[in-house]
Amino acid sequence: MCATRTPARPFDTHLDKNPANYAPLSPLSFLERTAAVYPDHCSVIHGGRRFTWAETYARCRRLAGALARRGVGSGDTVAVMASNTPELYEAHFGVPMTGAVLNALNVRLDAQTLAYCLDYGEAKVLITDTEFSDPVKAALGTLGRTLPVIDIVDPQAAGGGERLGETDYEAFLEEGEADFAWSLPADEWQAISLNYTSGTTGRPKGVVYHHRGAYLNALGNAIGWQMGHHPVYLWTLPMFHCNGWCFPWTLAALAGTSVCLRKVDAANMYQAIAEHRVSHFCGAPIVLNFIINATEEERRAFDHTVHVMTAAAPPPASTLEAMQRMGFHVTHVYGLTETYGPAVICAWHEEWNDLPIAEQTRLKSRQGVAYPVLEGLAVMDADTMTAVPADAETMGEVMFRGNIVAKGYLKDADATGEAFAGGWFHSGDLGVVHPDGYIQLRDRAKDIIISGGENISSIEVEGVLHDHPAVLAAAVVAKADEKWGETPCAFVELKDPAADVSADDIIAFCRDRLAHYKCPRHVVFGALPKTSTGKIQKFKLREKAKAV
Amino acid sequence: MCATRTPARPFDTHLDKNPANYAPLSPLSFLERTAAVYPDHCSVIHGGRRFTWAETYARCRRLAGALARRGVGSGDTVAVMASNTPELYEAHFGVPMTGAVLNALNVRLDAQTLAYCLDYGEAKVLITDTEFSDPVKAALGTLGRTLPVIDIVDPQAAGGGERLGETDYEAFLEEGEADFAWSLPADEWQAISLNYTSGTTGRPKGVVYHHRGAYLNALGNAIGWQMGHHPVYLWTLPMFHCNGWCFPWTLAALAGTSVCLRKVDAANMYQAIAEHRVSHFCGAPIVLNFIINATEEERRAFDHTVHVMTAAAPPPASTLEAMQRMGFHVTHVYGLTETYGPAVICAWHEEWNDLPIAEQTRLKSRQGVAYPVLEGLAVMDADTMTAVPADAETMGEVMFRGNIVAKGYLKDADATGEAFAGGWFHSGDLGVVHPDGYIQLRDRAKDIIISGGENISSIEVEGVLHDHPAVLAAAVVAKADEKWGETPCAFVELKDPAADVSADDIIAFCRDRLAHYKCPRHVVFGALPKTSTGKIQKFKLREKAKAV
Repeated sequence: MCATRTPARPFDTHLDKNPANYAPLSPLSFLERTAAVYPDHCSVIHGGRRFTWAETYARCRRLAGALARRGVGSGDTVAVMASNTPELYEAHFGVPMTGAVLNALNVRLDAQTLAYCLDYGEAKVLITDTEFSDPVKAALGTLGRTLPVIDIVDPQAAGGGERLGETDYEAFLEEGEADFAWSLPADEWQAISLNYTSGTTGRPKGVVYHHRGAYLNALGNAIGWQMGHHPVYLWTLPMFHCNGWCFPWTLAALAGTSVCLRKVDAANMYQAIAEHRVSHFCGAPIVLNFIINATEEERRAFDHTVHVMTAAAPPPASTLEAMQRMGFHVTHVYGLTETYGPAVICAWHEEWNDLPIAEQTRLKSRQGVAYPVLEGLAVMDADTMTAVPADAETMGEVMFRGNIVAKGYLKDADATGEAFAGGWFHSGDLGVVHPDGYIQLRDRAKDIIISGGENISSIEVEGVLHDHPAVLAAAVVAKADEKWGETPCAFVELKDPAADVSADDIIAFCRDRLAHYKCPRHVVFGALPKTSTGKIQKFKLREKAKAV
Repeated sequence: MCATRTPARPFDTHLDKNPANYAPLSPLSFLERTAAVYPDHCSVIHGGRRFTWAETYARCRRLAGALARRGVGSGDTVAVMASNTPELYEAHFGVPMTGAVLNALNVRLDAQTLAYCLDYGEAKVLITDTEFSDPVKAALGTLGRTLPVIDIVDPQAAGGGERLGETDYEAFLEEGEADFAWSLPADEWQAISLNYTSGTTGRPKGVVYHHRGAYLNALGNAIGWQMGHHPVYLWTLPMFHCNGWCFPWTLAALAGTSVCLRKVDAANMYQAIAEHRVSHFCGAPIVLNFIINATEEERRAFDHTVHVMTAAAPPPASTLEAMQRMGFHVTHVYGLTETYGPAVICAWHEEWNDLPIAEQTRLKSRQGVAYPVLEGLAVMDADTMTAVPADAETMGEVMFRGNIVAKGYLKDADATGEAFAGGWFHSGDLGVVHPDGYIQLRDRAKDIIISGGENISSIEVEGVLHDHPAVLAAAVVAKADEKWGETPCAFVELKDPAADVSADDIIAFCRDRLAHYKCPRHVVFGALPKTSTGKIQKFKLREKAKAV
């Protein structure tokens, strides 16, 4: 006979979860608390419109109540096609208050993709800004079913759009009650939002976030970025992009103020910074370039520090350096739609402040370490699932695990299973680990250039191109080559399109700074194609490169 | 036939938890991350001893490994009897790394109560500082079983203590491996610590914390107190008190530095503030009094702001005002052992800075609002479980609900059920709600004085006594009275025991400021009996009052 140890488990006996000691984690709790504690503090500014936290909470409850009256409830999808406006901010709370799932749509989508998203996500209600009525109308026409449409009619919009629904947003809010009795989700694992990937190839995939992850990454932003109470946050990053990296919820937790912005340009940004004393904003390096390359007329003086979080592409050292010199404090983060936005941060070390600025920007151009609320970050050989050595050279695939990795892909068990193979989320990004444990991206798996059997990181070459004084933006892609397999082809956007810079000048500049096999064989000048979130569309450049 | 709605649930299909997207919440994750990101940053200072985060992590793993070798595992209890030393800090991680439960014991406990705690908690190992060998030895003698004892031999200790165990702590660490393969708990609801209430009557109750709550309140401290990265935290609050209000884990999350302190007095505090640039500390108002009443020899100059969190008793306005004038920034919080320490905070409003300082201190003497990670705070009629009106007058019992309410009381289903009746944790504290939603304590339920049918808040009377310029500390309890039922009896400790202040002077001072029925009928001068955490022991005063 075999004696089994049966431990007494006093710590598990009569100590169960109950309503007094357990609540599902949800960012909705932040809104309720902040509306109670700081009811009169400014929540949202949009042009001449200003709301307090008491008002925003009441509007979110009205939205939830009005949606519930239309039959929206647990597990239903509410789609929103909107710029960074109070309405989309409110949807981040009003929709999940009903138990439903927010699907914020990319406003640049074409009608066909829009129709796909509405159909695949089984949207039950659509809230849409009239500015985008053309593609939305076309999409609804092909949908094969009708759904309630609520129009956002924003006086700040350029105008010209068409009303598509039976009611506008403000009238819709009147259908709900300011004291609508919402409740937390029954389970914190319940979906809070659906975010389509901006997939440059194939159908977009529907990434599903849950309340627990939204709560935790909202706090992760606050802790990782050392945000105090009452930040003034400028909405340069689209809220439809990974739910604005969870910042709508962070701002509720910190009783911050959202400064909305329909159109992101240098003049608007500087004005908001000066007028509202913006303390924080997020954006791709292209947004930083707006700041750096602003004209004298666009600039406005300000005397406080502005904290900037940037991601989407590793910021060139020249950009980081310029921002730092102008008094912006830049934090570099990295993440994917699947990780609720930022999940990796280039956590700063105080002693680095004593280094030369070039060395500081080199350190800061690395993506860094796990967010405070991410449990696992690794660079691995995807075949063996073993970590690469921390030698800054050996490339592997960046992998994530933890509570800010999404539930998976909607109605796509295969893609979900593949992404989570081996118990880690496979990012598809290639990177290295420095000896201090900081990771640095080398490329998207599909963007790597393989020339003569050698891997060439397009990001490394782009970094050199960005250091050229005449270059505004640059992208490097593979071009098929009979001899080498592939060679690097550079696309370069000049600060001054009429500048006297030749392809040979660029190549010579690279040869002084890179191994020769890494230097572009071809250089094409012109504006770069970008997504609405500022990502350069390399698939378009790969097409162009074929014809070079 | 009845048609039931069977919603399609695409958001719940193929979107389950897996190792890639779910991890149990545990503060152990903070230590692992900080040791990786800031390995060389100072973690703990104790006299001449200094550790880095890499070292602290290695020592915690060694501790876990050594405990595991002794058979300690999931659900076992490890008791620690220690001052605020590196060893007790390490136990906050090393013990739960094995799956075991940390029971940090109050070092002022008598042998009999100690034996009770060790027996009731089923301690499997005891780690004990030699300074406390007398009561510990006596307790072990009556325990009726033997258990492994590890001695902490601290050169900073006063000395004279006896070694009780077979090995000392440093030798014990050598038994474990610096790379011990610990793991997160299988379930975040698993117990992380056992904290005995300091119950002034009856047996102490064993309050059980779980990993989830410890993780969340650690972040709640950081968010609520706006702590940035790398705080320098002075250990004036005992770590055995609600696990130091979860600050051992907060400091791991923020890569802070713990400055240990065996003996809390004015000279030691000022020296640590000046020498280590302490940025934060916590303590009962008595600790603030050390600062205020320090002699010139004890004071040290410093040129930075020190943030102080205070609780345990509402700080008198005079104390708050004095601290503020001296450049300390005081935050007032409130909580109980059952709420992981602070769970209520007097969240500050920027506009209050423009008020007269007396008005500021009045506002700040209120306990406030829910912590950022507490889902429910209410003042209710305990019979009807309905909220009292927010009129600053109607008293009710303060109730809590949410993730930072403990699992319950160890092996005491009755007490647990009673405490959580109606789905809220009943604090036993009486308070009111101000029109702005901030709560203010009026009394412990058992401390209220009922005179001629009128409730008298002992705290209100004490507040007036504290305003008397000669008074250092004061406590008011009920004294039985034939006519009135009860009358207030004041115990007063003077700043200068030889001061020429009479009972009549004190009573006259009160009569100028309070309704007459609230004024003490008797005033007794002398030192007040206090617990090790600075709480005045009113049960002793009630005994004394009988003889007045």
